[in-house]
Amino acid sequence: MDRQFLVSRIKEKKNFLCVGLDTDADKIPDDLKAKKYSLFEFNRRIIDETIDYCVAYKINTAFYEAQGSKGWEQMQKTVEYIPSSHFKIADAKRGDIGNTSHQYAKAFFVNMPFDAITVSPYMGNDSVTPFLSYKDKWTIVLALTSNVGSKDFEQQKIGNNLLYESVIKTVASWGTADNLMFVVGATKALDLKRIREIIPNHFILIPGVGAQGGSMEDVVKYGLTGDGGLLVNVSREIIYAGNGKNFAKEAGKIAKRYDTNMKSYL
Amino acid sequence: MDRQFLVSRIKEKKNFLCVGLDTDADKIPDDLKAKKYSLFEFNRRIIDETIDYCVAYKINTAFYEAQGSKGWEQMQKTVEYIPSSHFKIADAKRGDIGNTSHQYAKAFFVNMPFDAITVSPYMGNDSVTPFLSYKDKWTIVLALTSNVGSKDFEQQKIGNNLLYESVIKTVASWGTADNLMFVVGATKALDLKRIREIIPNHFILIPGVGAQGGSMEDVVKYGLTGDGGLLVNVSREIIYAGNGKNFAKEAGKIAKRYDTNMKSYL
Repeated sequence: MDRQFLVSRIKEKKNFLCVGLDTDADKIPDDLKAKKYSLFEFNRRIIDETIDYCVAYKINTAFYEAQGSKGWEQMQKTVEYIPSSHFKIADAKRGDIGNTSHQYAKAFFVNMPFDAITVSPYMGNDSVTPFLSYKDKWTIVLALTSNVGSKDFEQQKIGNNLLYESVIKTVASWGTADNLMFVVGATKALDLKRIREIIPNHFILIPGVGAQGGSMEDVVKYGLTGDGGLLVNVSREIIYAGNGKNFAKEAGKIAKRYDTNMKSYL
Repeated sequence: MDRQFLVSRIKEKKNFLCVGLDTDADKIPDDLKAKKYSLFEFNRRIIDETIDYCVAYKINTAFYEAQGSKGWEQMQKTVEYIPSSHFKIADAKRGDIGNTSHQYAKAFFVNMPFDAITVSPYMGNDSVTPFLSYKDKWTIVLALTSNVGSKDFEQQKIGNNLLYESVIKTVASWGTADNLMFVVGATKALDLKRIREIIPNHFILIPGVGAQGGSMEDVVKYGLTGDGGLLVNVSREIIYAGNGKNFAKEAGKIAKRYDTNMKSYL
């Protein structure tokens, strides 16, 4: 999906919500657990009920890998089920030496129809650039994450910058605002003001709203641009809104509430 | 595998070689390509011919993921085929917020019999510690990698340290020399001297000997300890030593050459 299409979707729908499919085999309703493709069946119902209220889905690869090859198969079925109207992110946090990153890119961009993959910047240029060579695909690089551990390295001073600022400045020079995004946790929304001075045009993927406690209002205040420029991800608060027969409808209700809230900003 | 057993294996065999199974579906011999489990069949033959000349195997997850769920199944078959006498590393470079890292740990330590997983330190403490809670399992944290991009962030100055030194010092305090190792590329062997001052007892996983050009002599000179303390990984130079009918025997010959060389040091 190219930038123009992504921006047009956000503007048409007045929505920048990404629904996170962190689908935990232990947390899905009991009557689905017995099904052969239980993760996929859960996701399919969640997607059906949320698709009108979001512009993107993010699949957290860990939850599928934890179910072995059958989990991987269900990740594939899920991403193939999401229509091309929606932006599809593999939250995989990969990154390795060049010839290995090429294999990861093949896994997610060629063999599966993901539009984007999250990548760790630690190993530098040749671990990131293999992902950038795919047309209309996006590389979403970790900058300032939502977790407590972000203080250990990301927020340490490196020269005149914090490490995550150095990551944003350096990595931004390897691609463009048409193929690079950055991850900034919603729990760090106040830092978005400074980050927007470095990258006024890049899209930012914002996890950490909802279960992790980040504030939508702050995220919008400091992060929103004329093109939207944000994808705000909510995972657990939406997909585990209910745990009975109506779990998907409950998820849809929460997604709709985010949609209504977002429409007030765009 | 606990440290005592790993050290005893290295001392008995006078060997610290890790064979890297970066098994590329495009590079395996033609007569294997038609088989249902071609990656596994390739690996099985390589393992049979190299097992006497190494103490560890490292499976690079990217090459299996690039083959979809069938690739994942073959990673599982491969790690299950390797006997418990050998140390089994998932070179996965994972790392995410705590509840997600727990899922990755489940994928590699519970559902598959890996002894160790490689982890990126970028996201800090709560992205690494979930892996440390498994008894007799190891977390191998990226420190100074073998690739050109290591200069972009790993070798940047952070306070009085380079970032990778700060990673080693900080991460070492989260675990012990019984459950933590670090990755240092063979192409950076001269830095091992300073690294050994920080972590005299930790095992170090050394990729980059062979195809990437690192020197075994320098690695041994600056990295070897009384317990061995090193796992030197060689991937492409061994597994693609030949590409005809005798590919596995050719791989065995190169592994044997490394074994002979290592015996001269231990």
